[in-house]
Amino acid sequence: MSQDGDSRVRTLNVELGERRYPIHIGAGLLGEPGRLCPHLAGRQVMIVTNETVAPLYLETLKRGLDADLEVREVVLPDGEATKTLASVERIWDALLAAGFNRRCTLVALGGGVIGDMTGFAAACYQRGVAFIQVPTTLLSQVDSSVGGKTGVNHPRGKNMIGAFWQPRAVLIDTATLRTLPGRELSAGLAEVIKYGLIRDRDFLGWLEAQMPALRGLDDTALGEAIRRSCAIKAEVVAEDETEQGVRALLNLGHTFGHAIEAHQGYGVWLHGEAVGAGMAMAAALSHRLGWLEADDVARVEAVLDAAGLPVAAPAAMDAEAFIVRMRLDKKNLDDRIRLVLLQALGDACLHDATPPAELAAFIDAYPRA
Amino acid sequence: MSQDGDSRVRTLNVELGERRYPIHIGAGLLGEPGRLCPHLAGRQVMIVTNETVAPLYLETLKRGLDADLEVREVVLPDGEATKTLASVERIWDALLAAGFNRRCTLVALGGGVIGDMTGFAAACYQRGVAFIQVPTTLLSQVDSSVGGKTGVNHPRGKNMIGAFWQPRAVLIDTATLRTLPGRELSAGLAEVIKYGLIRDRDFLGWLEAQMPALRGLDDTALGEAIRRSCAIKAEVVAEDETEQGVRALLNLGHTFGHAIEAHQGYGVWLHGEAVGAGMAMAAALSHRLGWLEADDVARVEAVLDAAGLPVAAPAAMDAEAFIVRMRLDKKNLDDRIRLVLLQALGDACLHDATPPAELAAFIDAYPRA
Repeated sequence: MSQDGDSRVRTLNVELGERRYPIHIGAGLLGEPGRLCPHLAGRQVMIVTNETVAPLYLETLKRGLDADLEVREVVLPDGEATKTLASVERIWDALLAAGFNRRCTLVALGGGVIGDMTGFAAACYQRGVAFIQVPTTLLSQVDSSVGGKTGVNHPRGKNMIGAFWQPRAVLIDTATLRTLPGRELSAGLAEVIKYGLIRDRDFLGWLEAQMPALRGLDDTALGEAIRRSCAIKAEVVAEDETEQGVRALLNLGHTFGHAIEAHQGYGVWLHGEAVGAGMAMAAALSHRLGWLEADDVARVEAVLDAAGLPVAAPAAMDAEAFIVRMRLDKKNLDDRIRLVLLQALGDACLHDATPPAELAAFIDAYPRA
Repeated sequence: MSQDGDSRVRTLNVELGERRYPIHIGAGLLGEPGRLCPHLAGRQVMIVTNETVAPLYLETLKRGLDADLEVREVVLPDGEATKTLASVERIWDALLAAGFNRRCTLVALGGGVIGDMTGFAAACYQRGVAFIQVPTTLLSQVDSSVGGKTGVNHPRGKNMIGAFWQPRAVLIDTATLRTLPGRELSAGLAEVIKYGLIRDRDFLGWLEAQMPALRGLDDTALGEAIRRSCAIKAEVVAEDETEQGVRALLNLGHTFGHAIEAHQGYGVWLHGEAVGAGMAMAAALSHRLGWLEADDVARVEAVLDAAGLPVAAPAAMDAEAFIVRMRLDKKNLDDRIRLVLLQALGDACLHDATPPAELAAFIDAYPRA
């Protein structure tokens, strides 16, 4: 982490060689003049946002841009259900209608859905143009704006179509969390907790202590939680940009979680809620394999509960409903289901040795909401 | 170039570090057992081809694959007009319906349209899977199967949506040219001539001498023309994978050519025909700028004519029709039209200093068909 000539702003860098980029974190960054401009590829700027975020922050963002830029915008509907190729086509149509060339820059203003779609649109427009992430939800601030995963959902699976494409910069304005619904704040905390569970037991302890402050929108606590989360993710991504190895550990809770999201219909459970329940399931399975103690599982459940997250699986989902979806997971090699599990709190691993029948028995026995 | 333990087969490598891949050239490679298998990422293989090529070569290709592989196929309609996102969605749907994971391999069996779409489908399926090019037209053998450019057309412009994605290997079976219509052979020769014009004056001289043999499908001449073309392209791509500099020179004739294709409607003129006329126009403009001699321009026109290619622009296209399309070209920076021109035969350069009005006057004065 380095200071930015401004004590309110923390900057950390994601180290990816030529594609190295900075993450700036601070309250009120959004409308600051000159904050985005150093990262633009040229004069053409396309802001992509949604109908919820646009009335709150679009004008603020535009105020921070130089007057001589050619600025356009696409305002998409809100929600995970809109994370489709059809929405990305609207972005491409807007870019082509504006005659934007390969030195244009896309700016994603919104949550993870906007960030993933905008990044994918940038990855494939004229075979790749610049983009900048301005995440406005806790989830996207700590997760989807770091690491370059972009894409859209397909009726048969989440994030099935996409690309690895790195932003030029990420701008995180913690003040945008003031307008975030409480349920979405909790969903973001699921990913924050995940970083502690997979890699940093001290951070997990810090989160247990700070959970009331975080849910109370305490600025200092939020800033620190975001910084540590981004730093852990940036470290993991730098080690393994295209998810050949350690990066897969960031998927703790996601294999169960994606199955829940897909089965319930995208957007019924928030992504973070599904991941919360998925992490509780992963902890329970890790206990069954003899890795975690019963006390460890209780700690995981308690911190998730304190964050306002579910720990039980959906009532309507049987083991078969999980297994069918989990077979499609991108981590799988050939026909084995691969899961991220916990060898200890703060120490995750990949595991594909549990036979499907045993996995099904575990899922059937797991508590339902 | 290295030999392959088999004197009929020439192998050259495209040097891209980790993404280095071989091009195998020879007659009858298509159905040889074990030819594709070393390049597969796993057991799942999706062959993508079209309704013209499938009856000719699909079974031959499948005969060369090991019996224990899980082989599926997608057969798309033929033609440049099908090079759309909707066709790529059909490939993604087939992959997901088959439950293929990120260790699957896509095999493009067909011309440039199939190769570009299959490569783009591979680039974005689960954020990137392996693919192999098996080009069956001269154009795709010397051009689109080398270099990793993939993508689809948009109603507002050619190849506007796509990705840079390298194949694991390219398999060129010169015997497939026996079934290629003569008009498409000529279109392929346009790109062969291009390599001589931009980088290798000796090769241009060789082509002038060999043109009757090439159009007569002489095996030795075809094999040599393909090898030298691939070698030049591989060299240029290795120098500049993502087209920041020298790679743009491969676009000689393409800025005029893309405008012709887009204006006439994709598929009315073949890509190579449009590029042929575009190269003649680029040569004429290079003469107007004082770079080429009148004799040089005559040589360019003569070799194109000998290859069976047009040198005049379409009768119905005025300067405005060209300029509007050329403004959308991906090479342009900000609002200047960039062209590849010739400083001499065998020596191309990028040029953006001709004012639009002068360019329009040149185009208006250029001969029409």
